[in-house]
Amino acid sequence: MEQKISDKVINRLTLYHCILQDFINQGSEYISSKQIASLLRIDDSQVRKDINILNNSGKTRVGYNVKELKKSIEKTLGFSVTKRAYIIGAGNLGTALANYDNFSNYGLNIVSLFDNDENKIGKEINNKKILDIKELPQYVWQHYVDIAILTIPAKYAQKTADFLVKTGIKYIWNFTPAVLEVPDDVQVWNENLMGNFLQFTYGIK
Amino acid sequence: MEQKISDKVINRLTLYHCILQDFINQGSEYISSKQIASLLRIDDSQVRKDINILNNSGKTRVGYNVKELKKSIEKTLGFSVTKRAYIIGAGNLGTALANYDNFSNYGLNIVSLFDNDENKIGKEINNKKILDIKELPQYVWQHYVDIAILTIPAKYAQKTADFLVKTGIKYIWNFTPAVLEVPDDVQVWNENLMGNFLQFTYGIK
Repeated sequence: MEQKISDKVINRLTLYHCILQDFINQGSEYISSKQIASLLRIDDSQVRKDINILNNSGKTRVGYNVKELKKSIEKTLGFSVTKRAYIIGAGNLGTALANYDNFSNYGLNIVSLFDNDENKIGKEINNKKILDIKELPQYVWQHYVDIAILTIPAKYAQKTADFLVKTGIKYIWNFTPAVLEVPDDVQVWNENLMGNFLQFTYGIK
Repeated sequence: MEQKISDKVINRLTLYHCILQDFINQGSEYISSKQIASLLRIDDSQVRKDINILNNSGKTRVGYNVKELKKSIEKTLGFSVTKRAYIIGAGNLGTALANYDNFSNYGLNIVSLFDNDENKIGKEINNKKILDIKELPQYVWQHYVDIAILTIPAKYAQKTADFLVKTGIKYIWNFTPAVLEVPDDVQVWNENLMGNFLQFTYGIK
């Protein structure tokens, strides 16, 4: 039976995963819930509660086995199921995301980029080709990709979203500061950078 | 008296603000809580509850006055208090953020970028100069900037964070997939892109 995991827990588990990767890089074999809690400034009872969801068997007197805990998180969060995505917009943000070395570790495979700029079409970023946006419909159909990462200027966002929906895209990861109107069977995740910034800095005078 | 507003409310208010900007651009004068709720797929009672926090006076029979509601959000979230920040790392992501046309609307003023690459130092992005990272300490001291936006490769993140802390930076907006260890009086906001992606796509088979 699959257990539904809340957004907050998924977010924390991803951060634990980053910490575990750091520990592995440093050659550490064990980690305690207190060490994780201290790095994230949360309560260590919270960390233990989250880890209990994982059916992780690597707990010892000296802490959790780092590699086993990392594997448990990957299994639970489904990193092993590779998800394929296109980046729409090969500007600086699209290029940064295409170069982001960490995505593939989390099961996100960016297949290619799409743009309408003739100077960009045909070039490659991190071994991913920039293709003509006009060719997108046939690619979505041929390659079973259903995630689009939207990194274009806000003023083109809705029009492009309409186009993506028509091609059969079902998930839009929206990095533009526009709120998109899409049909009910399409999901949008707003990467609301300004909202995050305001949460972070709320209270600075 | 200032009311403490929760992170979730701040995040939603920022999205309402985006929608209001769209409505203004389209020449609309009024907006209903149902219109906002439908775009964000949330309950309209939630929207009304959030707006009630604002002391907004622009409600009429035909809905909220778009411009007044936008101003109320700006006042409540403190957009008018400009916050100054440096971008650390003038790669693609740093460049994308330096070019992001929306930040200044939300009171975030990116003063300049810092890098250690001699080919980048001295150049400008969106009228912001790229400066030598070695000069950062004197800039922090001279310009009263206390926010650093970290857009460097993960493997340099902790070392750079240590350096930023020494220069007097108190807020680090961390775009790297590294979890940073900093003193108690320094705050870190982890822009956990992979966590967001996993929340978004959790359940895709």
